[in-house]
Amino acid sequence: MDLVIIGGGIAGLTTAREAARSGMSVTVVDPTPTHGASYAAAGMIAPLTEYHIGDERLTPLLVAAAHVWPAYAARIADESGLPSGYVDHGTVVVGHDVDDKAELLRHLPAQRALGFTPEVLTTREVREREPALGPNLSVGIAAPADHAVHNREFLAALLRACELAGVEFVYETAQVTAIPHLVQCESQQLRAEHIVVAAGIDTVRQAALEAPIRAAIRPVKGQILRLQADRRTSAMPELTVRALVRGKSVYIVPRPSGEVVIGATVEERQFDLGATAAGVFELLRDARAIMPSVDEWAFTESWAGMRPTTHDHLPIVGASTRSDVHYATGHGRNGILLGPLTGLSMAEYLRSGVMPSPMSNASPLRFL
Amino acid sequence: MDLVIIGGGIAGLTTAREAARSGMSVTVVDPTPTHGASYAAAGMIAPLTEYHIGDERLTPLLVAAAHVWPAYAARIADESGLPSGYVDHGTVVVGHDVDDKAELLRHLPAQRALGFTPEVLTTREVREREPALGPNLSVGIAAPADHAVHNREFLAALLRACELAGVEFVYETAQVTAIPHLVQCESQQLRAEHIVVAAGIDTVRQAALEAPIRAAIRPVKGQILRLQADRRTSAMPELTVRALVRGKSVYIVPRPSGEVVIGATVEERQFDLGATAAGVFELLRDARAIMPSVDEWAFTESWAGMRPTTHDHLPIVGASTRSDVHYATGHGRNGILLGPLTGLSMAEYLRSGVMPSPMSNASPLRFL
Repeated sequence: MDLVIIGGGIAGLTTAREAARSGMSVTVVDPTPTHGASYAAAGMIAPLTEYHIGDERLTPLLVAAAHVWPAYAARIADESGLPSGYVDHGTVVVGHDVDDKAELLRHLPAQRALGFTPEVLTTREVREREPALGPNLSVGIAAPADHAVHNREFLAALLRACELAGVEFVYETAQVTAIPHLVQCESQQLRAEHIVVAAGIDTVRQAALEAPIRAAIRPVKGQILRLQADRRTSAMPELTVRALVRGKSVYIVPRPSGEVVIGATVEERQFDLGATAAGVFELLRDARAIMPSVDEWAFTESWAGMRPTTHDHLPIVGASTRSDVHYATGHGRNGILLGPLTGLSMAEYLRSGVMPSPMSNASPLRFL
Repeated sequence: MDLVIIGGGIAGLTTAREAARSGMSVTVVDPTPTHGASYAAAGMIAPLTEYHIGDERLTPLLVAAAHVWPAYAARIADESGLPSGYVDHGTVVVGHDVDDKAELLRHLPAQRALGFTPEVLTTREVREREPALGPNLSVGIAAPADHAVHNREFLAALLRACELAGVEFVYETAQVTAIPHLVQCESQQLRAEHIVVAAGIDTVRQAALEAPIRAAIRPVKGQILRLQADRRTSAMPELTVRALVRGKSVYIVPRPSGEVVIGATVEERQFDLGATAAGVFELLRDARAIMPSVDEWAFTESWAGMRPTTHDHLPIVGASTRSDVHYATGHGRNGILLGPLTGLSMAEYLRSGVMPSPMSNASPLRFL
């Protein structure tokens, strides 16, 4: 076999698809493909509104990743015959109180220096663009190029595209072993020329891998809600809305079906997947503060994922110290956005031995 | 056949068990037995803390119903070999602010006139009795005789007891017809000497029944949350806690397993079963105001039921204007508490033709 990929989230599956289509024989090992952090996510394709001060090295990667999304989504839809879930409605950012306004405006110079063009709106203007917003706002900022994808729809289409490209699946957990080219699954061993570890937060449990690289990944738990709006009886947003509400971030991502995703908590070093009462409460409190119609929507799901997060916010994609083992993990809060670029970059790297720019900034070896 | 019962909630199943054990041949018709309002409920056996001003005719019925519960639960556990779910830990009532305190104290004279012995506690005393309570309390009232049952466990045991007593089940919807003794199911017709309508809120859809009786029943939707506490890492209550928080009622019912039930919204004339964001938000807001450890519990379920409620708060149990048709519905917010007494009373009534006291106050004919 040419390639075994441990982990069937978005990074593993995009890598699998690209490698299989370039002629490699590929097996993905995962007990439940598509159902990890990729499934929990809200699916924002949002390099501007994901910008945090200090992310000057991450942002060019996010911009490049966002650029490949529309064509990539169209290809997956074509191949799979399933909807890609990609929508190109834009994003508005709002502040709730004056401190939230000050904090949002503080980011504008750095965003502009990176080439973004955020547009500052009055509260009246932002409510004209997104009438589902309530009156308790202090500022609005338009980010029309920040889009979104129904990540669960996309993952279903991507999985189908992998199957059609000849990717095999083993529904088990897997460990890289100390023996080159050997992966130990629950019921079998797999041998492959290349092993890609795309296991998200579970990468830290791969004892045969370099300890400093594993130690660079920590879980940041995120809880997220899914609601269902009935357009006949209540207002729902047409745009993705991100908000700062008394210093806490919340986002509201609408789907064409009426599903609305509200996220997400940021809980450092929480190694568990349970939704808590506090997470549900805080998300609803902050979302309804800026959008009163939240109250009327049906409450359908509370879910949680663990973002595999690094100190420097860059992912971990590329070579290990072993020639047979490679990484595609550590995507933190940007796993969906970075997914297609990760797969395209990994396939090129596996073909040529050279990681293309800008993903070359994400080398795992920087932690050694 | 002797008896067809439309509805497999607690009223239908207790009636079925008693009738079958007295020698009648019994069939229960319900698409999903035990999964209506009885399943949504929290399971409080609480005649004192369920008292509302004006309920002077209802309260004696609740007291009588609470008295039969311990022995009834023990019998069902014996027969079924399953846990009854009944627990005899008591209840404390707390107020959050001074207005809540005044409102709770306002009920004491009427409660004492009915023979109850509520014990007023200082906030320190109530926190000694229930250490999971937080500091933001204005008053406490002890109601040690108000108990609870894990209603889903009890329903499972009751269902098994019915099966063992020879009750047959048809998993379909059913309509009483204009033809005496004939019930129309989806795939078949059933004929029986007696027909008992124990269909909860769905009773209003029985077009062949008396319009004034159907019109006396309205849905009062209740949303309810289930959480899971981990006793190793967070405080959880040992007692049932009922609270008035800024004028709104909330209760917190612990189970021995660590499950904690938080309820319930009171939404008039809502003919739907969806949990809403507002319901989830308000229950969590009010529960965490009096018990901070709520925040730490895992959020496992949001559910809703429709309480079949009458104007006078008494249930609808007994004779119709047709000698073949009888009612056992309209139990409002007290369906679990009234369940065993309803079944025992109905069986006596079907045997003798006379409804025993105090259930005789619940005659359906009062609406004609």
